[in-house]
Amino acid sequence: MSLPHPDPDQISLPNVLAALGDETRLAIIGCLARTEAAEGLVCGQFAPLTSKTNLTYHVGKLREAGVINVRIEGTKRRVSLRREDLDNRFPGVLDSIIATAINLPSVETVLLDLEAHNAAT
Amino acid sequence: MSLPHPDPDQISLPNVLAALGDETRLAIIGCLARTEAAEGLVCGQFAPLTSKTNLTYHVGKLREAGVINVRIEGTKRRVSLRREDLDNRFPGVLDSIIATAINLPSVETVLLDLEAHNAAT
Repeated sequence: MSLPHPDPDQISLPNVLAALGDETRLAIIGCLARTEAAEGLVCGQFAPLTSKTNLTYHVGKLREAGVINVRIEGTKRRVSLRREDLDNRFPGVLDSIIATAINLPSVETVLLDLEAHNAAT
Repeated sequence: MSLPHPDPDQISLPNVLAALGDETRLAIIGCLARTEAAEGLVCGQFAPLTSKTNLTYHVGKLREAGVINVRIEGTKRRVSLRREDLDNRFPGVLDSIIATAINLPSVETVLLDLEAHNAAT
């Protein structure tokens, strides 16, 4: 089973910007950009940002706009940036937004939480 | 009398992106970017984009987010991009968005309308 994602040529700039025009969703993007070495994050790792219900909503918004890929892995959902698709279609847009998003205080909180969790396991 | 605008340091990226996450508002930005030599446009010049009521709404959204300046000139409202304020705060964001916005078909329509009007007067 997989979730619907827009094709690269269906991604529209108004939709992308509307999806990114929210503090929590920008923080999700900032977290993904900061941890890009790994292959994305699972939804639960964004828990410090907001409630589980809200996360589901925000991740859905980003997926429908074509900003992220969401892959179902058993009971988890793994999220990654559609960086190449966005860069091809709207050069510079994602990068310039990420430059601000990675410095959001809430992104720092998520990353510290991840580190603490990794150290404990 | 003047309309309220956010100070440069009050401009927030989520608000800017949410304001730009709309086809009509992107077109307004595209028109302003294409006609930058002049000192902005008056609201009525965006008439081909949508109804007068909608324009007032969209121009208000852009002003409140800090994307444009709106100056009252008698019965008209003159609109210009807050390019410097945005570039200082979020380098590259506006430029990369404009690169797509200036090519919207609706921007072309507005500019052809302006040219026709200028030729007739």
